[in-house]
Amino acid sequence: MKILLILALVLTGEIQARPSQSSPLSAEDSDPRKMRWMMGAPPARDKIITQPDSVFFSFPKLRWSVCNLRQFLPTKVIQRDSQRVTVLPIVSEQDRVRFEDRIDALTFPVMDSSEKLTWKESLGRNYTDGILILHRNKLIYEKYFGCLDQDAKHAAMSMTKSVTGLLTELLISEGKINEKSLIRDIIPEIGNSAFADATVRQVLDMTTALQFSEDYSNPKADIWIYSIAASPFPKPKSYKGPNGYWEYLKRVKKAGKHGEVFGYKTINSDMLGWVLTRVTGKPLTELVSEKLWKPMGAEQDAYMTVDGYGVPFAGGGLTANLRDLGRLGLVMLNRGKLYNKRILPASVVEKVMEGGDRARFGSGFPTLKSGSYASQWWSFHNKNEAFAARGVHGQTVYIDPKAEMVIVRFASHPEAKNGKIDPTSLPAYEAVAEFLMSQTSQSH
Amino acid sequence: MKILLILALVLTGEIQARPSQSSPLSAEDSDPRKMRWMMGAPPARDKIITQPDSVFFSFPKLRWSVCNLRQFLPTKVIQRDSQRVTVLPIVSEQDRVRFEDRIDALTFPVMDSSEKLTWKESLGRNYTDGILILHRNKLIYEKYFGCLDQDAKHAAMSMTKSVTGLLTELLISEGKINEKSLIRDIIPEIGNSAFADATVRQVLDMTTALQFSEDYSNPKADIWIYSIAASPFPKPKSYKGPNGYWEYLKRVKKAGKHGEVFGYKTINSDMLGWVLTRVTGKPLTELVSEKLWKPMGAEQDAYMTVDGYGVPFAGGGLTANLRDLGRLGLVMLNRGKLYNKRILPASVVEKVMEGGDRARFGSGFPTLKSGSYASQWWSFHNKNEAFAARGVHGQTVYIDPKAEMVIVRFASHPEAKNGKIDPTSLPAYEAVAEFLMSQTSQSH
Repeated sequence: MKILLILALVLTGEIQARPSQSSPLSAEDSDPRKMRWMMGAPPARDKIITQPDSVFFSFPKLRWSVCNLRQFLPTKVIQRDSQRVTVLPIVSEQDRVRFEDRIDALTFPVMDSSEKLTWKESLGRNYTDGILILHRNKLIYEKYFGCLDQDAKHAAMSMTKSVTGLLTELLISEGKINEKSLIRDIIPEIGNSAFADATVRQVLDMTTALQFSEDYSNPKADIWIYSIAASPFPKPKSYKGPNGYWEYLKRVKKAGKHGEVFGYKTINSDMLGWVLTRVTGKPLTELVSEKLWKPMGAEQDAYMTVDGYGVPFAGGGLTANLRDLGRLGLVMLNRGKLYNKRILPASVVEKVMEGGDRARFGSGFPTLKSGSYASQWWSFHNKNEAFAARGVHGQTVYIDPKAEMVIVRFASHPEAKNGKIDPTSLPAYEAVAEFLMSQTSQSH
Repeated sequence: MKILLILALVLTGEIQARPSQSSPLSAEDSDPRKMRWMMGAPPARDKIITQPDSVFFSFPKLRWSVCNLRQFLPTKVIQRDSQRVTVLPIVSEQDRVRFEDRIDALTFPVMDSSEKLTWKESLGRNYTDGILILHRNKLIYEKYFGCLDQDAKHAAMSMTKSVTGLLTELLISEGKINEKSLIRDIIPEIGNSAFADATVRQVLDMTTALQFSEDYSNPKADIWIYSIAASPFPKPKSYKGPNGYWEYLKRVKKAGKHGEVFGYKTINSDMLGWVLTRVTGKPLTELVSEKLWKPMGAEQDAYMTVDGYGVPFAGGGLTANLRDLGRLGLVMLNRGKLYNKRILPASVVEKVMEGGDRARFGSGFPTLKSGSYASQWWSFHNKNEAFAARGVHGQTVYIDPKAEMVIVRFASHPEAKNGKIDPTSLPAYEAVAEFLMSQTSQSH
């Protein structure tokens, strides 16, 4: 039996578990409760979702699986503080209803289209599983769909990278990592890997020059070798290839010169994960717990998928609660503070807010024409200087400093391409920001 | 590649992952921190613990793995109430020190031996990972060793059965399950399985007559078929056997007549798990959350390992926090109440306290000469009418109603046989009970 675990890739959108259908089911028709996935004892044959990921992570099944990754894969916990939850204040019931009505009715133009949508229509169009809006540190809007509810957790996909990036910036600010260090100076056994002569900053900003072939028809393509390495399942005795994220990183080949162009490649985040654990002696999950989840007063434990050696998937393995990502968004909005408690140094958040080099960013992301990527975060360089963590299938923590707004969305869009989801999302976020800024005279 | 996942069996002691060494390392020398398991980024080759279970669940590695099962296996969460923890009151610091000193110094005779041990010595002898003693609803003694600390979680092994049993008794008391119903009347597709004409009560009390061959040299022995069925990993395409706990249960053969003798077989608990989910429409993990973890105000989420269809392992898959099992112990001690909040009807706990038929119990457990098993709980029928949940490698929730005492212990003894651990455990628990009863004039 050959096990090709491609989860690492589907979670980050580098490949899709299955080519998208020409006309996928609507959000309503693909609702996991309506589909009756995994209901019954046992469920009907055709309602069972199981391994491999080409099954469990294909639409519409993925709409169930995004809330249930741990039942397919080994994981490690990100522990909250068991004794303390930071309450997210909610506006008065009257204001909540008012906000909900007015936001639902907001109309915005779809990007590069003559179509107009209301906010409420966009939720279904984007296969939203959960969404919340925080304004001036208060919860003003919160809705759940599909597999999600307030207590549940959802795959964060590539938003994981932003958490990994934040911890890297934190350790840089603490002097524990020098951003100019070469990876080989921190991890000598990286050997002749392309990462050897990359600086931490280049890895953080994804300006490394890495060969990463995605020729799916070639079984020796990097993408398949990475997938097999990443699989947590027992490998055949005959298997001689790399086992785990870190062994894979040692064999990455160079393609060009570091520091020149932005290239969005998940293995950069895995490299950061290794650096973080090497420097601190702690698994990434423990660091996230210690530096973010516990101080933030998260209301739910989070978790990360792991490889066969228990190494968390730093590039895409996070599953978390929607409100807890709301807390993280507030930390970013308030330059490191959550309700007057300092969680991160202001300089760490300010570094992320700077964004990256827009020229270097190139034109690979048509929906992010004026965007950039740095510190494993996306910047939109719009007039409100919004920035975000983003993950495929529609995940986002969107921070708008000028509108004093955080939007967190979990989604399970049929396509693993945010380029398909941005046109009905980014203008919607801007419309809410406009609306909230127009409310300045009102206090809540 | 052939994957033989034998975890279901090693977790319940029906087989051992590796024959025990003639003279295993002491508790001190096998301390996971001293062994440096999984330390380093990456750990040294010989410090890595990975699949398969014949590696990760063999002593001394198992001393690390018992706290980290989720990183080897898919799991489902048992959610606590995220907003509320029931605080376990602790005696004053002065009393705590006094209790610790006096309990540590207690001396007891090892069962069927001329040896005497102090309580403190017994902790190491039993490879204790965590132990707490509650007296009159207050925490008077708590210690952690090995892989455990107050926030961590540990495999509960066959104590899982007692949780499954408790929920079954609860649904019987609520009239949702009739204990006299035949399994085939609840689950018609059980077909010609041995379980078909067993009553729920017989399954609960393990007086079913089941064929379960454990001839390890025969690849067609039931134990191997069960192991492969239970594995959550993708099965080879050529695989035609049962997949998952429930499919396995359909093919169990009968050996004798139900209701006559006690036979300790894990598949009875799996059968109860299926009944519970069929009757309620909820996975076992959700039931445990709803009926116990949330109402109890547990301080940590717990979790259960699952098969390839996400079905929790009702016979041995639970991992939980020590104090949370302390809360469960108090519910049992106080006939269903935890600090004046009713968690279970008194009749459910009283049914468990009745114990089973001692004649039917037989002589298969030399360390439990006057014991019995009923409702998936063990009764000692000693003068204090103590009863317990028990799991291999030394797990217990031990309730002594007369001494108003609960002891919870997690351990990782090299041998998967409680018969080897009871001689240095059961007399120790009785000695603490005696001591506490002698303290009746003192209040704390």
